[in-house]
Amino acid sequence: MSEKHENPFSALERIFHEPNRLSIMSALSGAANGLSFRELKESCDLTDGNLSRHLKALEEAGVVQIDKAFVGSKPRTTIMLTDKGRERFIEYLQALEEVLLKAADAVSASNEKVVLPLGRIKPA
Amino acid sequence: MSEKHENPFSALERIFHEPNRLSIMSALSGAANGLSFRELKESCDLTDGNLSRHLKALEEAGVVQIDKAFVGSKPRTTIMLTDKGRERFIEYLQALEEVLLKAADAVSASNEKVVLPLGRIKPA
Repeated sequence: MSEKHENPFSALERIFHEPNRLSIMSALSGAANGLSFRELKESCDLTDGNLSRHLKALEEAGVVQIDKAFVGSKPRTTIMLTDKGRERFIEYLQALEEVLLKAADAVSASNEKVVLPLGRIKPA
Repeated sequence: MSEKHENPFSALERIFHEPNRLSIMSALSGAANGLSFRELKESCDLTDGNLSRHLKALEEAGVVQIDKAFVGSKPRTTIMLTDKGRERFIEYLQALEEVLLKAADAVSASNEKVVLPLGRIKPA
């Protein structure tokens, strides 16, 4: 992160934080060559309208790019992360991890009976 | 989780997901005896108005309780998680962990050059 936030919660970039946006960014992160509109829609379980709306916002923020081309006579839309988008999403995930660990530590510290359910996170 | 979601992103309870709400829930999770309004406000770096607004929503959802009492002649407001609230927040953190790991796996799978920065998360 170029700027160090004192409060990790304020480092959570709101452009990515909404659950459907997270789902879109996560799906695109795993696809180096991008995904078609239909693939992304099915992967994220969104309607056409919802996906379009989120993609518009993500494109305006410069974190995804949307290419339209013809494959034979069929139009095909390919959506992929920009380099900047991937970088910012990784920073977002780091902030999210910090927030999650902070909350998980708080839950365990105040509640002896709770065996922390976050099975895959190990203390440093 | 009482209900199994096929899509982990849809399991993120929206009542907790907003970053300031996360900050409030995290602070309260660490305080078995609750926090005063002022302590919570300072811990989360919120204005009176913002904190009040979030607490109202969280109280209406039954996840926090707000007690007003006099300590000597001074009014004191104590905010604490309800049992249900703690339970739901733990479930939320589990869902958040799942989402984070899914995204982190996707980022690493598609990008050889990225050494995954999520230092404290180990693969299962």
